[in-house]
Amino acid sequence: MGQVIASATASLDGFIARRDHGVDELFGWYDGGDVVVENAGDLPPFRLTEASAAYWLAWRESLGALVVGRELFDLTDGWGGTHPLGVPFVLLTHRPVTGSAALGSPDLVVMHEGVAEAVAAAQELAGDKVVGVAAGTIATQVLRAGLLDAVNVDLVPVVLGEGRPYFTDGAPVALGDPTTVVPGRGVTHLSFPVRPGG
Amino acid sequence: MGQVIASATASLDGFIARRDHGVDELFGWYDGGDVVVENAGDLPPFRLTEASAAYWLAWRESLGALVVGRELFDLTDGWGGTHPLGVPFVLLTHRPVTGSAALGSPDLVVMHEGVAEAVAAAQELAGDKVVGVAAGTIATQVLRAGLLDAVNVDLVPVVLGEGRPYFTDGAPVALGDPTTVVPGRGVTHLSFPVRPGG
Repeated sequence: MGQVIASATASLDGFIARRDHGVDELFGWYDGGDVVVENAGDLPPFRLTEASAAYWLAWRESLGALVVGRELFDLTDGWGGTHPLGVPFVLLTHRPVTGSAALGSPDLVVMHEGVAEAVAAAQELAGDKVVGVAAGTIATQVLRAGLLDAVNVDLVPVVLGEGRPYFTDGAPVALGDPTTVVPGRGVTHLSFPVRPGG
Repeated sequence: MGQVIASATASLDGFIARRDHGVDELFGWYDGGDVVVENAGDLPPFRLTEASAAYWLAWRESLGALVVGRELFDLTDGWGGTHPLGVPFVLLTHRPVTGSAALGSPDLVVMHEGVAEAVAAAQELAGDKVVGVAAGTIATQVLRAGLLDAVNVDLVPVVLGEGRPYFTDGAPVALGDPTTVVPGRGVTHLSFPVRPGG
């Protein structure tokens, strides 16, 4: 089975969004260069620097499926049923999903059973490819369950001061030193392996 | 005058210590190698990797003075009057200092007047050298006052989950991309310039 990797853009102080979910201070690197990178679905293309485009395209190519939580799903209305990364996505939620334009999409799987089951379902969809995990509550659950292989951080040099954290609170978890360090413009792409038992 | 630079070891989620001030998860890199680096005063020597030793010695050599806040001062009892980095330090505090072994040290300056005055006093002591600023409330005050030139982060690959932040809350502040990226063992040394008006 493929690896399970959380990935998100985060501020220097560890936030993936403002408290009001705003990301203006964080997402500038998606429009910081000249390389046009098309997205699936309705999201306009990114315009990345060469370094960020190479990193991003390799990440996208590695992906086979995603696991997302309810908050992000509701914020984007399930991306209208087509995730920008163009892969199927498993929504883990305790509440019923009604009235979403994403319902009925062949890319959407709704699970109510638990984090291990959601990851397993995504791995079934992904085959040998990576299962990506959205930051926040869902990434924290996957990390705490010992199911996460790596943490990718697109680190943006901004101090947000407050906001929504990449990982919510809990006991410390030791990772390994970054296996990837890609300097970009307005972002540094880092990947940290999760150490078994760490 | 020299630059004013905040510096601290921080977790991937932006914390410089646990809530109980513990730093065991963060300070492993100070004992992660074979290069013995002596400290001034009572602190035992560090044992650093070659990469971290080169980074650390250059930082120490660049320093002319420090500005510290009351919390760190009280936690260390003012380092007994001799800071491990071997430079004079300006304590900014609103409360009187009594009963500290550090009182009377020629390296200690106690200021009650405000952050700009404390930085100015440290710059006077430092001459052309760098004024280092301890993380936490004091670094946040210096940043918010527009007096900080760079933010150094010794980034440790651990998710603490909760703890004491490098910067306390406030409005977002944009920094520049890192001018220094030094991979180490159990740490990555980063330096981010503060952009004027950023």
